[in-house]
Amino acid sequence: MSYLAMYSTWMGGIVTDPTLMFVPVDDHIVHRGDGVFEAFKCVRGRIYLLERHLDRLERSSAMIGLSWPVSRSELKQRILETILAAGVEECLVRLYLSRGPGDFSPSPSATCGSQLYLVVTDLSHPPHWKYESGCSLITSSIPVKPGFFANVKSCNYLPNVLMEKEAEEGGADYAVGLDEAGCLTEGPTENMGLITQDGAFLVPSFKRILRGTTVTRMMDLAQSLVPEGHLREVREAHLTREDVLTAAEVMMFGTTFDVLPVVSFDGQSVGGGRPGPMFRSFLDLMRRDQQEDELTTPIASGSET
Amino acid sequence: MSYLAMYSTWMGGIVTDPTLMFVPVDDHIVHRGDGVFEAFKCVRGRIYLLERHLDRLERSSAMIGLSWPVSRSELKQRILETILAAGVEECLVRLYLSRGPGDFSPSPSATCGSQLYLVVTDLSHPPHWKYESGCSLITSSIPVKPGFFANVKSCNYLPNVLMEKEAEEGGADYAVGLDEAGCLTEGPTENMGLITQDGAFLVPSFKRILRGTTVTRMMDLAQSLVPEGHLREVREAHLTREDVLTAAEVMMFGTTFDVLPVVSFDGQSVGGGRPGPMFRSFLDLMRRDQQEDELTTPIASGSET
Repeated sequence: MSYLAMYSTWMGGIVTDPTLMFVPVDDHIVHRGDGVFEAFKCVRGRIYLLERHLDRLERSSAMIGLSWPVSRSELKQRILETILAAGVEECLVRLYLSRGPGDFSPSPSATCGSQLYLVVTDLSHPPHWKYESGCSLITSSIPVKPGFFANVKSCNYLPNVLMEKEAEEGGADYAVGLDEAGCLTEGPTENMGLITQDGAFLVPSFKRILRGTTVTRMMDLAQSLVPEGHLREVREAHLTREDVLTAAEVMMFGTTFDVLPVVSFDGQSVGGGRPGPMFRSFLDLMRRDQQEDELTTPIASGSET
Repeated sequence: MSYLAMYSTWMGGIVTDPTLMFVPVDDHIVHRGDGVFEAFKCVRGRIYLLERHLDRLERSSAMIGLSWPVSRSELKQRILETILAAGVEECLVRLYLSRGPGDFSPSPSATCGSQLYLVVTDLSHPPHWKYESGCSLITSSIPVKPGFFANVKSCNYLPNVLMEKEAEEGGADYAVGLDEAGCLTEGPTENMGLITQDGAFLVPSFKRILRGTTVTRMMDLAQSLVPEGHLREVREAHLTREDVLTAAEVMMFGTTFDVLPVVSFDGQSVGGGRPGPMFRSFLDLMRRDQQEDELTTPIASGSET
């Protein structure tokens, strides 16, 4: 992964040398995970779903009472400038909003004010993005976050880290949580969904998990397949392990990879053991959506925003 | 608060200029809270309970599969050197063990190795340390951490941050959690305990909360009051709000302040509304313990350790 540019309110500018990409050790994001974040990508010079990511950032920060150090329009300006400094049209932007430097206490009032850190990297393509052969999924044993904390995209991601570790150690590509009621939740940083044998596109209820930006957009886009009869319906549902094992297709959704097919679950073959037709339709719909005007922000118009 | 010295394995040395006290933005401790920590103090040139803090650090890091970048003896050497660089005999040491810099994913295997950050600050004395007038305590409404995560002293402290916020906004000095069974748990970074009307020293069960180093030592020291009849017994217990409201004395325990008396709980007077005799005995026992040889580590012997 190449680190292309970093902006921070703390430094008051942009650096492109990775050795200068630091944060103060006393920022509460470091010692308490007291911050919220978003990740979004720029494809062929257009940032995909930027406004929706910023909407979620607003919700996350409101939930923990974290004020923004800049206005929303200034934030967009900084994002565009940092991508321009990175000098590429394809990249991933990580946005961190921290409680800020202060002391080493947990007190949110003991800082000099919230900070914004933006990091632009290249769009790397890890080996577990198995668009052709399909991914493996396992059920996680890590306790799921209490509802309130599942709904804020904060830097308290240790449960997610341990799910990732569990998947790696179990030889799987992804792990998905199981809540107290036996319902599937989400992966470490991605959502899951499935197509039932009778053509419904079902996604675990957002009451218990973070509302994924990609899967939410996928649900909108998938609606276009309903009138033509390719899908029967699109909705949230309580999904069990049994639902996954008997599904026609199983998929993962995430900002970086868009959509991935799942072909095995807890060691058993699912969805016929190979990527299905609905996966191909979904990926195609989303890739086309990334070049439409509706939900993309062109980086070239930076100075006007 | 004065920042006196910082050591990091990343820099490979000690700095005393606060403007150089940074961590790399891609260290997973920053964006995922993927790290564990300890805080301990040095009083009159002796580090109090160092070995016990390091024992807990070992337990915390083992729980999340985080390896140490240095051996335990090297770690102690770095701690002593950093305190010596700080040039004071009274200070607080914050020790962070991070997953390390790597990429911006949650994957614990995607780093160049765990890092150690040590920060030495002065021992500040905030206004809510009310040894004379007593502190106020409220019940928190923030969901308690699942058991596994309550027992690891990680940098996922957002629930603790929100409890601190709740206390501040409610005009109280501390907030204490309430678990699903209606039992009191712990404060944001301190333990609570109480003396019953019949002279038992009771502390919330450590099954559901982090085992506090200070309160654990206090329980040992308090045993000395049993044979003389000043206390009837010392033990862990399931404590309810009612137990606090009817207690003879209520106290908080923490590394920085040792022991504090609580005189109000959810707006009602407790413990007679003023610091009690057992609080004074407890504080005295602990302050004397900090100058004994048994559980203190003299900083002057740094080169021999």
